[in-house]
Amino acid sequence: MAVSQKVRRFMEEGGWIRRVFEEGLALKAQIGADKVFDLSLGNPVMEPPQEFQDELRRLANAPLSGMHRYMPNPGYMETRQAVADTLSAETGLDFSGGDVIMTCGAAAAANVVLKTILNEGDEVIILAPYFFEYLYYIDNHGGVAVVAACDDQFQPDLAKIEAVVTDKTRAILINSPNNPSGAVYSEERLTGLAALLERKQAEHGTEIFIISDEPYRRIIFDGISFPQVLPQYDNSVVVTSHAKDLALPGERIGYIAVNPNYADKEELSAGLSFCNRTLGFVNAPALMQHIVRNLQGVSVDAGYYEKKRDYLCRHLGELGYDVFRPQGAFYLFPKAPIEDDVAFCKTLLNSNVLVVPGRGFGTPGYFRISYCVEDWVLEGAVKGFAAAMAPPEG
Amino acid sequence: MAVSQKVRRFMEEGGWIRRVFEEGLALKAQIGADKVFDLSLGNPVMEPPQEFQDELRRLANAPLSGMHRYMPNPGYMETRQAVADTLSAETGLDFSGGDVIMTCGAAAAANVVLKTILNEGDEVIILAPYFFEYLYYIDNHGGVAVVAACDDQFQPDLAKIEAVVTDKTRAILINSPNNPSGAVYSEERLTGLAALLERKQAEHGTEIFIISDEPYRRIIFDGISFPQVLPQYDNSVVVTSHAKDLALPGERIGYIAVNPNYADKEELSAGLSFCNRTLGFVNAPALMQHIVRNLQGVSVDAGYYEKKRDYLCRHLGELGYDVFRPQGAFYLFPKAPIEDDVAFCKTLLNSNVLVVPGRGFGTPGYFRISYCVEDWVLEGAVKGFAAAMAPPEG
Repeated sequence: MAVSQKVRRFMEEGGWIRRVFEEGLALKAQIGADKVFDLSLGNPVMEPPQEFQDELRRLANAPLSGMHRYMPNPGYMETRQAVADTLSAETGLDFSGGDVIMTCGAAAAANVVLKTILNEGDEVIILAPYFFEYLYYIDNHGGVAVVAACDDQFQPDLAKIEAVVTDKTRAILINSPNNPSGAVYSEERLTGLAALLERKQAEHGTEIFIISDEPYRRIIFDGISFPQVLPQYDNSVVVTSHAKDLALPGERIGYIAVNPNYADKEELSAGLSFCNRTLGFVNAPALMQHIVRNLQGVSVDAGYYEKKRDYLCRHLGELGYDVFRPQGAFYLFPKAPIEDDVAFCKTLLNSNVLVVPGRGFGTPGYFRISYCVEDWVLEGAVKGFAAAMAPPEG
Repeated sequence: MAVSQKVRRFMEEGGWIRRVFEEGLALKAQIGADKVFDLSLGNPVMEPPQEFQDELRRLANAPLSGMHRYMPNPGYMETRQAVADTLSAETGLDFSGGDVIMTCGAAAAANVVLKTILNEGDEVIILAPYFFEYLYYIDNHGGVAVVAACDDQFQPDLAKIEAVVTDKTRAILINSPNNPSGAVYSEERLTGLAALLERKQAEHGTEIFIISDEPYRRIIFDGISFPQVLPQYDNSVVVTSHAKDLALPGERIGYIAVNPNYADKEELSAGLSFCNRTLGFVNAPALMQHIVRNLQGVSVDAGYYEKKRDYLCRHLGELGYDVFRPQGAFYLFPKAPIEDDVAFCKTLLNSNVLVVPGRGFGTPGYFRISYCVEDWVLEGAVKGFAAAMAPPEG
């Protein structure tokens, strides 16, 4: 009676990540946090960079007049311009401040974009494995999620995407570097995706957006550079946050960037600003907007995560796990050695290791490791992974 | 093409407050901010209290470990408990931390509550004059807004409310002290409302929530105390923020409090937490949660606004305006001296005075003055109000 029928159903069905996270909290309370090897949540253990700490201290010690007041809903123009300048340098496109809408993180950004563009019943393609919350975001605004599985390297499978594009397709929501696989979608695959969508738009007389969810784009390894999708496809927007690159997940600061070559960008930006307000976000937190304005060139050290990837991939490989070696983010998505990923996660729980079953990402038979944790957690977890692989006794 | 049909329609129809705000920005850019008397937005000119500045400085200079990370979606339990303790003292009810969900402001709180409780087509009663954004919040989550006008003292009109309660009524969203009228709903009227809803619930076999939007409850004048609705009606929640009482509108920090006597409060709290996450808010900004934890007893000086109310009411009365003298918030809602409130607002604009037409609150024929501004703005505005009342020359 208290909650709507849909919310009740969603709560019963989903929420694997948070479910494991809550289980972990309970286990920690029971046996002590130092005995639990919690690889469940993308909650970086790193503190924000020194530059962030310095900016926060500077503003706290010499507050600007009115710095906690309302500003125009899309944010301070100085902050939007700083983001635009960085994006222009990174993409080669010519962003202006008006193309950027500051948001309460990437989850807010994704909801605002979907609210703005979706008519009731419009379809949004997502690629499995996917961040499970996408299902809720799409449903929130009357959309219908349509899933296309990635290939065995966790790259977009163009044939499978083509098979699900219809005249109701309004957007494809992609995420690279990917949560949960860590895969970085290749330049070549993004080129193919852009060509496919151009062709389908012409065929159906529709407009199909690419919504590129990029919170991990600065956490990238092996010296590669991040393949940008926006220069390849005009009908596109970025949704992202500083949760990972500045290690600020709790502060809810991110943005939407509209492709400066998108034909109706003024109308879209006005719609995004309207929906940012009316969905109840109103604006991105003021103080964080003041701070990130001057930190657009700053990021946590990706090498910190790269070492952890190397450590885990080596050990998991030695133990016989089938694990894809990713080039970004801070996740691994190995195959579960038994078919039932939930059962396997329960086995790991016997060693106090917390991971999330693959079905929490629309991909049963796998499990997700979040390795943005301290080394002792990884070391303890590896013992658990070994125990779970050991042949049964007797 | 860029935005959905509904968003386009909403953008064309509404948004009076922001429209005037944007007009004001343009006018300021054109003739200088010191020549514009902007009474359009509830954007307090006050800086946050010294206690806030001190807390911010303390945390910036000696950061807590992990203080910018994710926490459980409903917020830090210490903060929730601090809010609960204050609410318990203020209402006489027995709140626990579990009854409080920290949110990105009151607009977020209202959206989260509506998302959680509404099934498609459920009706939500609002009382005119109302904050126009309520219409969007209700529509966002499949609800249908049903309007009941207040009486001539801007108090809830129980007969009019009774006339619109149906078996589809899921909630009534009230706002006291009221934006735009400044009225404080009386104890007696709230008692009547509670009795009416109890009767209607029994009659229809339904559950009807009171959602009490209370961001102005500490900005209250004439030594009166704020009449609480929660002690009178179990099926109720508070949605509020620290935007006004701590002068932090840009920081997006508020909360939902579930009546501790509500029968299904565990399910409701779980649903609120789920929707807070999946609507994309995820959690209230971490740093602000750390700060407001220790400021629950702190508030801006309501006397600062009371003096401004007195000044404006005196001058408007002398000029012949028909103006209700409110006991809270920082708004006045006088009758426009001509029938067409939009035309009257345009007349005021000739004197560089910005106010919002009453139809922006579902109540044509009035206009809203937001007086959370410096005295020179009020003094300049009074000259404009005088000019607009003067008989036409010639």
